[in-house]
Amino acid sequence: MENKTIELLGQIRTDAPLVHNITNFVVMNSSANILLALGASPVMAHSADEVGEMAAMAGALVLNIGTLDQCWLDAMICAGLAANEKGIPVVLDPVGAGATQFRTHAVEKIMSACRVSVVRGNVSEVLSLGSADVQTRGVESSLGLSDAVAADLKALAYSKRCIMAVSGKEDCITDGDRVFRVENGHHLMTRVTGTGCGLSAVTAAFCAVASERLLEATVAAFAFYGRCGELAAAAFDRPGSFYTAFLDCLYSAGEAEITRGLKITESAGVSPGAGGSG
Amino acid sequence: MENKTIELLGQIRTDAPLVHNITNFVVMNSSANILLALGASPVMAHSADEVGEMAAMAGALVLNIGTLDQCWLDAMICAGLAANEKGIPVVLDPVGAGATQFRTHAVEKIMSACRVSVVRGNVSEVLSLGSADVQTRGVESSLGLSDAVAADLKALAYSKRCIMAVSGKEDCITDGDRVFRVENGHHLMTRVTGTGCGLSAVTAAFCAVASERLLEATVAAFAFYGRCGELAAAAFDRPGSFYTAFLDCLYSAGEAEITRGLKITESAGVSPGAGGSG
Amino acid sequence: MENKTIELLGQIRTDAPLVHNITNFVVMNSSANILLALGASPVMAHSADEVGEMAAMAGALVLNIGTLDQCWLDAMICAGLAANEKGIPVVLDPVGAGATQFRTHAVEKIMSACRVSVVRGNVSEVLSLGSADVQTRGVESSLGLSDAVAADLKALAYSKRCIMAVSGKEDCITDGDRVFRVENGHHLMTRVTGTGCGLSAVTAAFCAVASERLLEATVAAFAFYGRCGELAAAAFDRPGSFYTAFLDCLYSAGEAEITRGLKITESAGVSPGAGGSG
Repeated sequence: MENKTIELLGQIRTDAPLVHNITNFVVMNSSANILLALGASPVMAHSADEVGEMAAMAGALVLNIGTLDQCWLDAMICAGLAANEKGIPVVLDPVGAGATQFRTHAVEKIMSACRVSVVRGNVSEVLSLGSADVQTRGVESSLGLSDAVAADLKALAYSKRCIMAVSGKEDCITDGDRVFRVENGHHLMTRVTGTGCGLSAVTAAFCAVASERLLEATVAAFAFYGRCGELAAAAFDRPGSFYTAFLDCLYSAGEAEITRGLKITESAGVSPGAGGSG
Repeated sequence: MENKTIELLGQIRTDAPLVHNITNFVVMNSSANILLALGASPVMAHSADEVGEMAAMAGALVLNIGTLDQCWLDAMICAGLAANEKGIPVVLDPVGAGATQFRTHAVEKIMSACRVSVVRGNVSEVLSLGSADVQTRGVESSLGLSDAVAADLKALAYSKRCIMAVSGKEDCITDGDRVFRVENGHHLMTRVTGTGCGLSAVTAAFCAVASERLLEATVAAFAFYGRCGELAAAAFDRPGSFYTAFLDCLYSAGEAEITRGLKITESAGVSPGAGGSG
Repeated sequence: MENKTIELLGQIRTDAPLVHNITNFVVMNSSANILLALGASPVMAHSADEVGEMAAMAGALVLNIGTLDQCWLDAMICAGLAANEKGIPVVLDPVGAGATQFRTHAVEKIMSACRVSVVRGNVSEVLSLGSADVQTRGVESSLGLSDAVAADLKALAYSKRCIMAVSGKEDCITDGDRVFRVENGHHLMTRVTGTGCGLSAVTAAFCAVASERLLEATVAAFAFYGRCGELAAAAFDRPGSFYTAFLDCLYSAGEAEITRGLKITESAGVSPGAGGSG
């Protein structure tokens, strides 16, 4: 996966893919800066008057439901349909799904109206997408992801026909068939707003240059992003200066930092139900 | 007050209280980062479809009227009522009150619809809340607060049954009975956007862990926040690098930086009317 | 122009002119910080309930159509009319004009409803304002601006009775009569979001203190802003730390940094049509 990551990163820096973000007010600035530092071209647009046209120009679309309201939800679906028609990847960040009814239902509406390629969230947000078809067995984000949770995610990915990509102390990415774990990252990333949302945007940038291999692109995005967090935290141990260094690393990290730096493992034999005794 | 400040800060870092912010677009990102650096958990949500539910989950609510429109005003009142029902503190930041009719009236609407625990603003914003019942005698923020202004603030706090917390070169916090002055802070804080709004958010975080002792919590928040500004300004004397360091200090400052660092005095004998000859 | 730039900058730092911004969600925070670092006083307000009142208090108005929707467009026109009535300069940033129909039409509506003093954008955005009356001959932003494009901009400025101010590798500012080129700046500015929009805000601040000499004020704003980019890039070569240093330079750069540091040339003999053989 290291060579693949280096290759995709190089492609982003060469092509500067346009990533259309309909995202929340808190992270608009930071997501744009994260994408620019990485080498991609962000655009933010949310008016129903133009989202279709904008999404059709982009290489990938991010739908992020933080600070959502009804009007923005309608625009997201409109943009999602345009992205589907054009065949570009759609990354959904279900911020706060499971916390309020409005957000949980918003995710359901988006998922049933549009084809979503990747759902990127924390474990409780992502598992909130599963209702009757997946029985969640509790959230253990502080402990890393148990095999039981990984099995739930795999089942959810399978049933939704979509990559489920959970970030946390340990990340888990699955398309319902294969399951990857990523252990890059640093706890200071949780002390800066928008790092999760920024990962959704970075995942979209990787997917934009990945042709059809979206699972690998997502794993590469998670590992590279977490690696940059580690590098920044090695230089600065407080959140203000850490964040500045993190942007710097997204810009400058390359082959030297990636080689032998990614902590990716593919889990063998995680099947729905296997977690029952986990 | 130093021990109280250390205790409340420790409580925030242990409990990571959820602070629900309905705030302006300019500072959403910075308020979130300030709360995260401090150790609290920010959430931003403004849709009428979910603010009640979100406020009811939180430990404190911030209502900030910068970049207000009618729709957001309705949501603020809705969230305020939910917070009142739950019994959690509400901090109101009357950004620009007194500058436009719309903002002045918005503050009146919020104050008459909901019980506000603390109003945090600059002196002209806060004094604009007093109309018939308090005669303002001019704004002297550049000179520090005169006894006359402190007396007005005390009378206003008494009549509104709410803590009035004014920040400026010298801060003044009063519940209509006791009056505190805080002299921590640095002028570079005025050269970075969102430091005032960030103080409202930090005040909410301190109130969230303070049980009923909101006056002390507000004083502690002001003094700690200003102290972090001093520490950052001692390291960097220009606004970009100052702000980065300020976030770092909010994260790392503790007992060592607080002890003998807070400049809090309680004013004796400031009574409504006393300022008439001030 | 160096003395003029030093003079206007000093005036901004003395007067702290109020700059009213109706701008996009991505850059609200960064535009405010850029204006504060420079020495101006930013205010953001977009509600139709108050934009007229706010614009009438300001020294300049910025209309920026990034993240536009119909409601904000109406508010921009309302504020623009108030600014016209008061006689204060209006700077329009046509973000994404030419990219979607909605944005192209929005610019037309603003330009026909209000008198705009300066249009600040990249070359494709600005040239999208010309339709029947100016024939664009292609965009060469990566190569610097050809004489043909400069001639088009001059013709456009003449026909719209408005300063056209294009930023890019090389900047071009013209009022339809005189044409200036500015070569200050650094490519890292394109790797941080909001630097273009920030230049529109800075242009407004320079115009706010310039009395009627808006062409010179715009040229001074571009050159000073680009110079700060160069200074920051000399200190840091990655976008996170570059941006922090850029804010620091906007705050601290003065006579010493400006003298012999500005790369401004006035083009002689660029006339509409001259570019035909360029």
